[in-house]
Amino acid sequence: MAFKTDIEIAREANKKPIQDIGAKLGISSDHLLPYGHDKAKVSQDFINSVQDRKNGKLILVTAINPTPAGEGKTTTTVGLGDGLNAIGKNACICIREASLGPNFGMKGGAAGGGYAQVVPMEDMNLHFTGDFHAITSAHNLLSAMIDNHIYWGNELEIDERRVSWRRVLDMNDRALRDTVVSLGGVANGFPRQTGFDITVASEVMAILCLATDLEDLQRRLGDMIVAYRRDKSPIYCRDIKADGAMTVLLKDAMQPNLVQTLENNPAFVHGGPFANIAHGCNSVIATTTALKLADYVVTEAGFGADLGAEKFMNIKCRKAGLAPDCVVIVATVRAMKMNGGVAKADLGTENVDAVRKGCPNLGRHIANVKGFGVPVVVAVNHFVTDTDAEVAAVQAYVKEQGSEAIVCKHWADGSAGVTELATRVAELADSGVSNFAPLYPDEMPLLQKIETIAKRIYHADEVLADKGIRDQLKAWEEAGYGNLPICMAKTQYSFSTDPNLRGAPTGHSVPVREVRLSAGAGFIVVICGQIMTMPGLPRVPAAENIRLSADGQIEGLF
Amino acid sequence: MAFKTDIEIAREANKKPIQDIGAKLGISSDHLLPYGHDKAKVSQDFINSVQDRKNGKLILVTAINPTPAGEGKTTTTVGLGDGLNAIGKNACICIREASLGPNFGMKGGAAGGGYAQVVPMEDMNLHFTGDFHAITSAHNLLSAMIDNHIYWGNELEIDERRVSWRRVLDMNDRALRDTVVSLGGVANGFPRQTGFDITVASEVMAILCLATDLEDLQRRLGDMIVAYRRDKSPIYCRDIKADGAMTVLLKDAMQPNLVQTLENNPAFVHGGPFANIAHGCNSVIATTTALKLADYVVTEAGFGADLGAEKFMNIKCRKAGLAPDCVVIVATVRAMKMNGGVAKADLGTENVDAVRKGCPNLGRHIANVKGFGVPVVVAVNHFVTDTDAEVAAVQAYVKEQGSEAIVCKHWADGSAGVTELATRVAELADSGVSNFAPLYPDEMPLLQKIETIAKRIYHADEVLADKGIRDQLKAWEEAGYGNLPICMAKTQYSFSTDPNLRGAPTGHSVPVREVRLSAGAGFIVVICGQIMTMPGLPRVPAAENIRLSADGQIEGLF
Repeated sequence: MAFKTDIEIAREANKKPIQDIGAKLGISSDHLLPYGHDKAKVSQDFINSVQDRKNGKLILVTAINPTPAGEGKTTTTVGLGDGLNAIGKNACICIREASLGPNFGMKGGAAGGGYAQVVPMEDMNLHFTGDFHAITSAHNLLSAMIDNHIYWGNELEIDERRVSWRRVLDMNDRALRDTVVSLGGVANGFPRQTGFDITVASEVMAILCLATDLEDLQRRLGDMIVAYRRDKSPIYCRDIKADGAMTVLLKDAMQPNLVQTLENNPAFVHGGPFANIAHGCNSVIATTTALKLADYVVTEAGFGADLGAEKFMNIKCRKAGLAPDCVVIVATVRAMKMNGGVAKADLGTENVDAVRKGCPNLGRHIANVKGFGVPVVVAVNHFVTDTDAEVAAVQAYVKEQGSEAIVCKHWADGSAGVTELATRVAELADSGVSNFAPLYPDEMPLLQKIETIAKRIYHADEVLADKGIRDQLKAWEEAGYGNLPICMAKTQYSFSTDPNLRGAPTGHSVPVREVRLSAGAGFIVVICGQIMTMPGLPRVPAAENIRLSADGQIEGLF
Repeated sequence: MAFKTDIEIAREANKKPIQDIGAKLGISSDHLLPYGHDKAKVSQDFINSVQDRKNGKLILVTAINPTPAGEGKTTTTVGLGDGLNAIGKNACICIREASLGPNFGMKGGAAGGGYAQVVPMEDMNLHFTGDFHAITSAHNLLSAMIDNHIYWGNELEIDERRVSWRRVLDMNDRALRDTVVSLGGVANGFPRQTGFDITVASEVMAILCLATDLEDLQRRLGDMIVAYRRDKSPIYCRDIKADGAMTVLLKDAMQPNLVQTLENNPAFVHGGPFANIAHGCNSVIATTTALKLADYVVTEAGFGADLGAEKFMNIKCRKAGLAPDCVVIVATVRAMKMNGGVAKADLGTENVDAVRKGCPNLGRHIANVKGFGVPVVVAVNHFVTDTDAEVAAVQAYVKEQGSEAIVCKHWADGSAGVTELATRVAELADSGVSNFAPLYPDEMPLLQKIETIAKRIYHADEVLADKGIRDQLKAWEEAGYGNLPICMAKTQYSFSTDPNLRGAPTGHSVPVREVRLSAGAGFIVVICGQIMTMPGLPRVPAAENIRLSADGQIEGLF
């Protein structure tokens, strides 16, 4: 049996005009700003008009720690959304936008896979509605204005060595990681060392995804710290007077993008912050809008539950006043096997013991999520090589943890393969058993917050932070930033900071390498390990094989 | 009497849905890819379907050398288009897109002015349909792939000192003019000196504006020279294998953008190459498409006729097989006075002598354009301070040159102010008197082409080019580039290379500082004087005052 590729399936999609999709959510066509026939932004007037409505149920899809076997978190998010609609519920999906740059390195990402996809796939992997370009422009306008301020006399007394605001491009370009700018003489300014990050790593991206409206956006942009004086006092974006123009550049980017699944159900695809130095969730405005328009909103968070769900709860839900009604943890038999020590090449062979051995990774995520007071169900995203005995082993293990694991075949069958999960999720969400609370209160000291995450979520023994880091955290507390939540940046492959430590490790420490203040986004980034904010291209970039075919189809992007 | 500002007038526009504007040109709504309700791209299928149609008449609007008094070339282009429609003709306008970056330096540019504007003005000065962002992405993908090639072993043996391909941003950022990249150690590549230009200066922009279709676009992108080996042999974009992916990134950007004038007439706004190191005209695909859809197409070229019209004729028309049927040269009484020696502060006072004294600048442009075998009419773009005697002096002078000058009041009155000009332009275009020929044949040696432009258009005595430049031109001829046209890059303020030499100077020389081969665009750039390809921001950038008002209007951008 030959399977169709994701892009083949996506191209066969029987897409409906985006106005029809909007109509499913009660959005009239004059409140949809079309981008082509299959994409649209929702007007702010419409969003304002629905604020008094009751919220639907919020369902988070998260996952075990990712393995090279793949777990299919987005695919399950899309499949569950379609499944809920298939059982007669009014459901909407909220996921992140894809970054353009990485598509030219490795093969481009789809939005979902198989028969659980969001379309138009090509557009979503290219310029889409231009949101990331707008973020790039806004970010770099501020960069230019900082150097321009220094050039024209530096009235704010910026210490040129302490300009923390870099530049961004939505491109994998290692040559830009570390640069010297303003060479070439007096007319070009004062030479200084700086660099570029990829656009999704911009604090502007994080802010766009946390802002509730344009006014909040501008306030947060103004709050960003861009540089320091020689006395180490901060210079804000507001001091540079860039916040107004940046907001103008981001005006359209703030509006959620509406697209559709292969089954013509509505999907908001909006925002895409890094899941390490930022919180890794789609925009608050998309999620809160969807909650006003649908009875069930299915969303996801980046990486595994130790990073993604933790930040979703402690950053996004806390700041946006959201509370999830049910959490789905995606696992696969293959990933359990890898956690159980099986090599990727051997995943096709039945190995029930290895499945059992790998299950504690899943078990810890279940316990962690339950710790937020939210009901959990496990989705076993089915692969063709999975045997009944292996699936049964996962289900038995999950039952022992007091939860249930439901097999899903949305990849192969679309909504028909996920009705059992959809039914159970709707029951749990409707049951009212959710009693959500974040992991720590705002007023807890910063270091204690870090320790709480490390101990409660990672099950580490301790946090290692030297005096410099402890002093910095104290200084921020004194400056009024002590009430911010923590945004952990560590490997996604393990509960620990060692990517090779699979399963459910204990007895480990969490060494803090660096802390950063994202004063506009409103969190403290705690960096544990190497975090790359500007990727490079591989030896043979995907770009070399990307081209238009004779009939105008895009080849090589997927 | 208080005049409304351009933006106030633009905001009062009674815009029609873009589908209605498309219908005026016979484009059905399924062939319009909408961007909001008032912008759309025209599908390639539709463009292909009209190729067998007869062309309409092509009218170029050009101008005297610009002065600080302003001449209103775009305003006249828009006004004339509306005027032709007002007298019952089926006319379409083709102009360039605005660059985003400069809007944050000085006050943003409108598309036309007064009651002769193209709308939506805000969008056109911000992200519009994303074309320039796509060009930025395509350009920088190639940059990243070049450094990546060197990083992974440099199989092509690129001389790192001779990478001519830089990076671009659509931003005024002087700090990026001259940079060192790939610092920070082995993982970041080989440090080398390079820099950024503004996006409109990218050869990708020039190519997009000269390509006839996506296949031609990809071929031209592949032809670009990006670096040299130690033996000085060229490395092409094709060698880096970036041409396919760049074409994919530019797929939508290649399609012309349709918008409307204040009087709901169709306008294509597409492409915007620099008018110095590139040819300064809107895209060939927009112009040739418009010629299939309208009986009269009014377009313009950058700067005064010595640069803009010359390049329109010798580069755009030559390459696209176009022939203008009539040329309009825009002049103003105020600009004549400045050419006649009056300071800007004194322009409000009647001074017929100064008008007469300034007229030879206009006279030379008239003679130059006639030299291309094309009928000329002068549009005197009326300002409220112009006196009857001053206007009469211009008209008398133009009559002596064997042409006629018609007063236009489209700025104040829209199409009603420009019917006389429209009527005369239609007569001339329909008369068949145009007998267009470029200034020089393809096979003329490169240096002789430069001399022909300098002597015939600038009325210079000689071209000064040292041995290095002459040798370079000969080397390109031997390499097969001798048949390319010349793209002159000099000051727009004078026929000479001295911006202070107003009027119609003679006895001057044209010193060539540098020559560059744009092998993909297909021209030789001849640089005479300082050409800035990355602008800076002024002491108080416009960005500082740009913001959203409480009711969501953009303030400070215009």
